[in-house]
Parts: sequence; structure tokens; C-alpha cells
Amino acid sequence: MRFKILWPGKTRNKDLRAVEKSYLEKINRMGKCEVFETKEAKGISEKNVDRIKKIEAAGLEKFIKDDYIICLYDQGKEMSSKEFTRFLGRLATSSKKIVCFVVGGFMGLEDSFVERAHSVLSLSKMTFSHELCRLMLLEQIYRSLSVLNGRQYAK
Amino acid sequence: MRFKILWPGKTRNKDLRAVEKSYLEKINRMGKCEVFETKEAKGISEKNVDRIKKIEAAGLEKFIKDDYIICLYDQGKEMSSKEFTRFLGRLATSSKKIVCFVVGGFMGLEDSFVERAHSVLSLSKMTFSHELCRLMLLEQIYRSLSVLNGRQYAK
Repeated sequence: MRFKILWPGKTRNKDLRAVEKSYLEKINRMGKCEVFETKEAKGISEKNVDRIKKIEAAGLEKFIKDDYIICLYDQGKEMSSKEFTRFLGRLATSSKKIVCFVVGGFMGLEDSFVERAHSVLSLSKMTFSHELCRLMLLEQIYRSLSVLNGRQYAK
Repeated sequence: MRFKILWPGKTRNKDLRAVEKSYLEKINRMGKCEVFETKEAKGISEKNVDRIKKIEAAGLEKFIKDDYIICLYDQGKEMSSKEFTRFLGRLATSSKKIVCFVVGGFMGLEDSFVERAHSVLSLSKMTFSHELCRLMLLEQIYRSLSVLNGRQYAK
């Protein structure tokens, strides 16, 4: 399976970045997964939420091809890990060649961007920092691929 | 507010451990939170799940005092971050002096241990590695304390 993950800007926390890297390496032993750090809105006051989201949506847009797009979003659908694995398993046989996950930045994703996604996923009822969400997503992809490949996965 | 967190053994991933440490430092600027690495069942085949859980439950037990016990458990109650914050806010005024979170090890928590908890919490419908759960819990405690202390928290 081929995955693409888009998120605005580099992960600032270097320790989280190191964990991301190790998950990516493990995922890439079973499939192909590439992270694209898209344009991040910088130097704009947090009060201008809409402007930040608009700039970052335009940056994400550039990397969207004819992919199956899954946006991570608070109000998305929650799945158990088993459901998520089945979901990815079904996608593996679909016509779309690449599954593209999109994780919003510091202020989240623009609504209109989320509306055009094929699926909208929520990792938890709780809100986690966008940098931690990146890691949680990678862990779930790794977990699901391990199951789909018949490997045992550390709990 | 005073928190105690119990989990069996040290976090093996050094990068996750570094992130844990930085969250703990941030939490301790607003409250008091101590992590106790309890006895971990080692050298036992994973097939002996019940034995592993029993050994680790006994190790956790030693650190349980007259605390308000919250176990993290797959089948626990999911809360939004707002609900979790309100929940901690209420606990701050309760008769129990310390809120004690318990996170299971590699094989999870023993059912009988979970049954005696005052609350059972699930961080997500998805299953995450126990080491990642530790981090997710710390992030939520930090997020909630920031709100309860009237500070702005990075999204």
C-alpha cells in the first residue's frame, strides 16, 4: 500500500520528530509512506484563524493528486483499530493508488478543505496537540499494516 | 492539584521518555505530578497473559494509598478534553487529596484491578501502544491544568 501524509511545517519538538522517523522507517518496511511538510502560515497573529487556515489549505492543496483523501478532524468518524485496519484493507483494493492523510496545523484544517475529503477521521474524542496527532496517526498506520501483513504488533 | 501516575517499568523508547519528561516539567509548574515506575513482569512468555497482569497488578497495588484511582482501559469511558477538564476540576474539590492514574503495561491491566478503580477512562476508541498512551495521558493532564489555571494552551 502507498501512503502520503501531508501536514503544514516541520514538527518542532525534536524528540517527537525522532519517534515519527522511527515509525516511518518501520512503516516503510511493509509499505510506502512519505510525509510532506507543506507550507506553514508564519508570523500571523493567532486571532486571524481563518487566514492561517486558508494559507495552509492552499499549501496542502498543491500536494493533492488523484488520491484517496482522509482528513483528520475533531468531528470526524471515530474508529477502533480493528475498524481502521479493515478500512485500510478495503482501500488497498480500491481504484485509488495512494491513500493521502491530511493533518491540520496548529489552528486545524479549513472546513472547505475537510469537506472535499473522501473520509474524515477522528483519532479520539479528546483534543491532542497537532504534533502528537501526527505521531498517533503514524502509530495507527504502523499497527494496521502489521496486522494486514500478518505480523505481531507490540501492544 | 496533586497527581500520581503509576505504570509498570520504564518507558523503553528514549525519545518518548524525553517528551514525557518535558510534559512532566510543564505539569509541575502548575501542580504536582509524580510518576512511579512499578514492577514490570519480565522474562515471562507473552502466552502467560494472566500471570503477567497479576504480577504487575501486585506491583501497582503497593503504590495505591487512599487516592482517587483512575484506570486507563480500552473499555473505559471516553471524554472530550472539555469533559476531562471539568472532571479534574470537580476532583480538585473532592475529599481525596491525590488523583492517581494507572496505565497498564505491555499486556494491559488486570480486570480485578480495573474494577476497584473510582473511574475508568479510555483515551480513544483506537488502541495505542502503552508507551504512547503514557504520553497522551500526560498531554491531557497538561492541557486540562492549563485551562483550569486560565492559561492558553498550544493546540
